[in-house]
Amino acid sequence: MANEKIPYKIYLEESEMPKQWYNVRADMKKKPAPLLNPSTGKPVTAEELSRVFCEELVKQELDDTSAYIDIPEEIREFYKMYRPSPVVRAYCLEKQLDTPAKIYYKFEGNNTSGSHKLNSAIAQAYYAKQQGLKGVTTETGAGQWGTALSMACSYFGLDCQVYMVKCSYEQKPFRREVMRTYGASITPSPSETTGVGRKILEEFPDTKGSLGCAISEAVEAASAQEGYRYVLGSVLSQVLLHQTVIGLEAKTALEKYGVKPDIIIGCAGGGSNLGGLISPFMGEKLRGEADYRFIAVEPASCPSLTRGKYVYDFCDTGKVCPLQKMYTLGSSFMPSANHAGGLRYHGMSSVLSELYDQGLMEAVSVEQTSVFAAAQQFARVEGILPAPESSHAIRVAIDEALRCKETGEEKNILFGLTGTGYFDMYAYAAFNDGKMGDYIPTDEEIAVSLGRIPNIGD
Amino acid sequence: MANEKIPYKIYLEESEMPKQWYNVRADMKKKPAPLLNPSTGKPVTAEELSRVFCEELVKQELDDTSAYIDIPEEIREFYKMYRPSPVVRAYCLEKQLDTPAKIYYKFEGNNTSGSHKLNSAIAQAYYAKQQGLKGVTTETGAGQWGTALSMACSYFGLDCQVYMVKCSYEQKPFRREVMRTYGASITPSPSETTGVGRKILEEFPDTKGSLGCAISEAVEAASAQEGYRYVLGSVLSQVLLHQTVIGLEAKTALEKYGVKPDIIIGCAGGGSNLGGLISPFMGEKLRGEADYRFIAVEPASCPSLTRGKYVYDFCDTGKVCPLQKMYTLGSSFMPSANHAGGLRYHGMSSVLSELYDQGLMEAVSVEQTSVFAAAQQFARVEGILPAPESSHAIRVAIDEALRCKETGEEKNILFGLTGTGYFDMYAYAAFNDGKMGDYIPTDEEIAVSLGRIPNIGD
Repeated sequence: MANEKIPYKIYLEESEMPKQWYNVRADMKKKPAPLLNPSTGKPVTAEELSRVFCEELVKQELDDTSAYIDIPEEIREFYKMYRPSPVVRAYCLEKQLDTPAKIYYKFEGNNTSGSHKLNSAIAQAYYAKQQGLKGVTTETGAGQWGTALSMACSYFGLDCQVYMVKCSYEQKPFRREVMRTYGASITPSPSETTGVGRKILEEFPDTKGSLGCAISEAVEAASAQEGYRYVLGSVLSQVLLHQTVIGLEAKTALEKYGVKPDIIIGCAGGGSNLGGLISPFMGEKLRGEADYRFIAVEPASCPSLTRGKYVYDFCDTGKVCPLQKMYTLGSSFMPSANHAGGLRYHGMSSVLSELYDQGLMEAVSVEQTSVFAAAQQFARVEGILPAPESSHAIRVAIDEALRCKETGEEKNILFGLTGTGYFDMYAYAAFNDGKMGDYIPTDEEIAVSLGRIPNIGD
Repeated sequence: MANEKIPYKIYLEESEMPKQWYNVRADMKKKPAPLLNPSTGKPVTAEELSRVFCEELVKQELDDTSAYIDIPEEIREFYKMYRPSPVVRAYCLEKQLDTPAKIYYKFEGNNTSGSHKLNSAIAQAYYAKQQGLKGVTTETGAGQWGTALSMACSYFGLDCQVYMVKCSYEQKPFRREVMRTYGASITPSPSETTGVGRKILEEFPDTKGSLGCAISEAVEAASAQEGYRYVLGSVLSQVLLHQTVIGLEAKTALEKYGVKPDIIIGCAGGGSNLGGLISPFMGEKLRGEADYRFIAVEPASCPSLTRGKYVYDFCDTGKVCPLQKMYTLGSSFMPSANHAGGLRYHGMSSVLSELYDQGLMEAVSVEQTSVFAAAQQFARVEGILPAPESSHAIRVAIDEALRCKETGEEKNILFGLTGTGYFDMYAYAAFNDGKMGDYIPTDEEIAVSLGRIPNIGD
């Protein structure tokens, strides 16, 4: 182990950090389908989107031709506080698995937000500040996005209003306090502060909320206040764009040591981390310069890619956001209370959906208990306590490494370790106590929510 | 900011990591006083200590002449999983304070244990493994040490039995689950598993325990089991020795950029982090090669250096451990429920006590609410959410930087950021809600516990 030339952690110099984000849509021959205005059924215009999102972010959202977009200097300065993040060679895990495969992971948990979400949060906060806004609104479920956005807003002196799904608000008081420490105001959703919230509370006074409802409240709150816009932590193409710092750094780091990954694995909820990790490699594949296997890993409890339909659907349950063509289980699909809150989303990024539809990426779904078994195994030898979301990628990386053990292949496996699990100890407790279950929706359940998808677009 | 030559984070290469620990006692003309056997009043022998501690660790504990001690290859391999840790230039904090001072911090929170404790935990686990032991026992209060030791034992396949102060066990279920995830067994202390525990429970059935009691239980449990020894996370000279990786790395990193710190600041509970950070610099001072100001920061609620007495005292309330000459408030001193659990210890490392007594180091005490105000200020601009313990050093670093603002001096300030506060959100919540108080023991209270110190030794 000691004689290997590749260090445990490959750190780049600050000067090697990417100066531009990479927009994979520019290299796609068949582009992702445009967002549609739900009332007209026509592609949404920049002007329409600008009522909800910051102007510069709208440009990025709609731009599917520019391959590279400059990262503003101020954002790069902030990135330097916690980036470049390391690519870690999982020597200890390899040894334990006794596999000829070489396992690498890009670790995005080394910042207080605890996940990769900060990469896009700081960009979105920056553009809001540039536009002269007072603040932003958003929703958060598991709390990683809300935490990241709170940090970013604190840095730029922006007001940050977070609608936190009520059950998370109550079950994750520590997440809430982290956000408050960064100066954000947190409202349990549904709330009395919005029309949508009041309506839902009237109908279901005991509801513990949902991500869809919190999105609708945050969007309403943004439009109701002068100088506010709404921001979102995943699904959107702009978010994937910002997250390409993950893949760009990973590629540069591995190239320094002459390593070409054979398999690249990431967990997939809305797609922000996976899209960010694979984009630069996918670009090479699209341009015919190299080939890679890409694997999206989703929870068996919320299998949008592996069991969903590729159609236009609503992004939120309140149906206030544009329609997006994506792999979806239907916006009425209610995933079980899986502990990977960040992967409980009914749809998938339109970019990743299109790449998957073109057969350029694979997808697998894995069950919760097998994910936590992988998480525990990983933690005990590699030290890092992974987030439940990230552990989906660990599960499949271990499975692929064990396959290499059978075949004797010395494959290079790269996976994204998106964050840490410090705020997910309830879930670990359930696993440690043998009280964790698995939930796989039946074909009938999925058919019902798929049946409710509106018949709009192509 | 962008034109500065010093990066935000100074990372060393793996090859620049220290290969030896530095033993500051070797350069002290007047050595720390020896540990005494409480029953004989004479210096404790290696043989006596070996009944409680691993043999190699006993050697390190008693060795006050070897300046450098080799770090075994296996420990260095483990260190590579999370070291070298960065020295961060606090550009954002400097800007916010508008100070001419240059602030650097050595960040030890980038590992799952969340603190510097892992540096010694892995060393102690390694020597236990080398000795062919089955496992180790320990106590934990705040949980940082227990977490670090659980990780280290998991890595070496050792059994790890942690006696966790009952109130922490109940109030910090997440810490407990992290340890369980790493395979440790956790017993709330006092417990029915030891004689000491049963005796205390009989007398005080409702007690929530104390660190002193947990130590006594852990020591008893180690002696009661074949192939077990007891390990401790602070206070001892062996622990300070292992922790010198902090100071050695910090010194190398700063020297690469030609930076000589004027002031070096660390929080002080038992002294493990402070001792580790300052030792290499103190060595230069002792040898007359350079001069530095060293500041130990302790909580006003548990001010062993600033208000204690320099005498022989018990290290634990059960009085089973050797007597140590140290600054102490008396082993019967009951510190208030300050949120910096890691600084609630009645005594101080004998090495630091002696250095302080010789006037080579300063000490200040700070109040809890001012510490959390500094923590919040730091988090909002530097991103990292600091542990309450570490925030004591932040408080004084900010105070010194503001002093430089008044005088116009461009001092270099280095402080130790020992860990993250993810598991301390109850404390942050109290601060966020304006419900945090300060507690300063009265002279009478301190006099009472000082009066109970046995009159042993010189």
